[in-house]
Amino acid sequence: MNSVPITLQVQKALRLHIGIFGCRNAGKSSLINRLTNQELSIVSDVPGTTTDPVEKACELHPIGPVVLIDTAGIDDTGALGAERVRKSLGVLSWMDLALLVIDAATGITAADQKLLKDIRELGTPAVVVFNQADRVPEGTAERMASDFSAAEKIPAVACSAKLGTGIEAVRAAIVKAVEAGWEPDQLLVSGLIPEGRTAILVVPIDFGAPKGRLIPPQVQSIRELLDQKSRCLVVLETQVADAISELKVPPAIVITDSQAVKRVAAQVPPEIPLTTFSILMARSKSDLAELARGAAVLPELKPGDPVLICETCSHNPQGEDIGRVKIPNWLAKNAGGPMKITVAVSKDFPTDLRPYRVVIQCGGCMVTRRHMLARLRECRKQGIPMTNYGIAISHLQGVLERTLSPFPEALEAWRESKAARSDAA
Amino acid sequence: MNSVPITLQVQKALRLHIGIFGCRNAGKSSLINRLTNQELSIVSDVPGTTTDPVEKACELHPIGPVVLIDTAGIDDTGALGAERVRKSLGVLSWMDLALLVIDAATGITAADQKLLKDIRELGTPAVVVFNQADRVPEGTAERMASDFSAAEKIPAVACSAKLGTGIEAVRAAIVKAVEAGWEPDQLLVSGLIPEGRTAILVVPIDFGAPKGRLIPPQVQSIRELLDQKSRCLVVLETQVADAISELKVPPAIVITDSQAVKRVAAQVPPEIPLTTFSILMARSKSDLAELARGAAVLPELKPGDPVLICETCSHNPQGEDIGRVKIPNWLAKNAGGPMKITVAVSKDFPTDLRPYRVVIQCGGCMVTRRHMLARLRECRKQGIPMTNYGIAISHLQGVLERTLSPFPEALEAWRESKAARSDAA
Repeated sequence: MNSVPITLQVQKALRLHIGIFGCRNAGKSSLINRLTNQELSIVSDVPGTTTDPVEKACELHPIGPVVLIDTAGIDDTGALGAERVRKSLGVLSWMDLALLVIDAATGITAADQKLLKDIRELGTPAVVVFNQADRVPEGTAERMASDFSAAEKIPAVACSAKLGTGIEAVRAAIVKAVEAGWEPDQLLVSGLIPEGRTAILVVPIDFGAPKGRLIPPQVQSIRELLDQKSRCLVVLETQVADAISELKVPPAIVITDSQAVKRVAAQVPPEIPLTTFSILMARSKSDLAELARGAAVLPELKPGDPVLICETCSHNPQGEDIGRVKIPNWLAKNAGGPMKITVAVSKDFPTDLRPYRVVIQCGGCMVTRRHMLARLRECRKQGIPMTNYGIAISHLQGVLERTLSPFPEALEAWRESKAARSDAA
Repeated sequence: MNSVPITLQVQKALRLHIGIFGCRNAGKSSLINRLTNQELSIVSDVPGTTTDPVEKACELHPIGPVVLIDTAGIDDTGALGAERVRKSLGVLSWMDLALLVIDAATGITAADQKLLKDIRELGTPAVVVFNQADRVPEGTAERMASDFSAAEKIPAVACSAKLGTGIEAVRAAIVKAVEAGWEPDQLLVSGLIPEGRTAILVVPIDFGAPKGRLIPPQVQSIRELLDQKSRCLVVLETQVADAISELKVPPAIVITDSQAVKRVAAQVPPEIPLTTFSILMARSKSDLAELARGAAVLPELKPGDPVLICETCSHNPQGEDIGRVKIPNWLAKNAGGPMKITVAVSKDFPTDLRPYRVVIQCGGCMVTRRHMLARLRECRKQGIPMTNYGIAISHLQGVLERTLSPFPEALEAWRESKAARSDAA
């Protein structure tokens, strides 16, 4: 029977995101249908049928599970059209691969040229597809592809999504470009403790973790510790002291959910290293030192200061209210009054960051490292400090120096940045 | 932007399976499109467009993620049609809910009556939908539904999938029937050890577990132990002795992957209880005592005996070759020659089990308890013993009495059945 392959159920975070870009009616949706072997999406002869970017999960052998993102035409017009173009270009910033679909009968448009410029600036791996080869004399689309490829140094292929010809070449070009340009997540805990030692992982169950499950960083940490021949003792935040006293040899490290860090820190003797899953996520998905540097603005915040809190997905597995309630409350408590908080929940990153004093970003467990680095790069470009949930929480709970200690470079970045800000003030 | 809800990514095992049944062109596919708010499936005016059952994942508030299974018309004719009907009825046996769609303009057919009889025999929760209310005078479909419901004691509603009217009533009836008839998985480890004690979980990483992850029974066990305020020490199969000696108080239980059970048993002192994830799965998903009883046939197997090995999904997370290579090899070793092995990989269960001496079933981590119990019931009906991977492996490794010890009823069932067979021989 026709069942959903199990591989489609793996964490989306481990999936490659491939954006399909191009002018209206270049045949993007038809090509996606061919690539996914499905006839499921609405394919229309009316240009501009795709409006908001639409995600489709599929298996792309031998890469494994990927997400194809079908975007609106980059040549759309009018106020609404311009908004759609803006959305499509926003998507480009965090793609692992961009597929630019060009109608061979129309040729390369100004909008295509503009997108290619963006692709080059972002350094996004890309493949150009000259589609609708059936609408031009035989061999024409293939020649356009090889000429383009030779001139622009971007892989290009020809196909007809309508007839289903050349699809294997498109697939092969995608696989090749992905393999050449893939930026994997860094490991979470590997290398933190010696082989054969035990880590204590603190997993509170009252912070919104889904029933019967653990959240991705917890599972990944357990697995990585096993992979490197270490052990882990998994405990509630109420049993950390019990767990430490249960062991004949002290644990090599204690890793806790950020939200319990203060309570856990009180149970862990100072000679035992302590950090949080969020800080490990910052190291794995982004640049921990730069996020630690960004946190140095937090002690300066005053009531009413504009703060942007960013979540990359609409469901925060660490508890629904962490971005909207807990962090704002802790910020208010530390500053003596509430900030002006904006919460942005989307894979798209707000374009203009200049109104904010600081950006506090979630761990990003559901998106790729390329995505998180794109956000960090944008903050740097606009001169706005960025930090993440875990670092902010550790700071607001008064234990940041301790939880950064296992990462000397990040600890140094935080101290230097704080000192520099204080000198400047 | 339009992103796949996170909830769609939860384990399929935790999802409810809802089968949509009915005559050709009763409007099953259109109704599914309405229920999923999608226009994705091919809806055709040609009767019998749906052939193999097609699965669609969607979110059904407030139940959460469900899988809708679109089946072929139960009134199909001809040789091919009969095969399709057989497939549709095969699906019924493991549904958590059956939705019978009736064309209000046609009324209840003989095929519908036959399906209702099967639904009653299986005790499957059901909802009857009088669809295409737009094709009969106003109020007619509603009256048919209320008459049917009063006469047959099965909830019934009217709707027009074409116009989109009455869909909310269908949804509400589904939710109500599901809540009344849901058979949840039993817990895996809860109640096995006292609160505040530590379990050792043995997780080999060389048996095909996917990179960066743990398999569902492992994650679920860790979570359940936390839920009941116990702790767990997660270790490789090479470090069980180290882990035991690392603890000041011996662990309350050791739970291991079945494939490492012999190696692990050698490291665990006899006074410490030992079992396997597969045996816990058998308890959670099926009837452990009956599966232990079924295993009593294993010592009698002779070379050439026909053995049916069943996997419910095409990807076995415990290692690709366990059903095809490892168990057959162990069986051959124990019997002094190879069995005649048939491996059935499908959600559908083979209809005729009588050619086999024993059915060895996988843990079923990707299907529901209702599904596993349906298989066990079918074996019982045909008088064929069924056991599962974990029980078979423990037996073939010579440690079954030990791994069943934490479950006295199952241990007793195994011993009694073996004694009875030996008396009969």
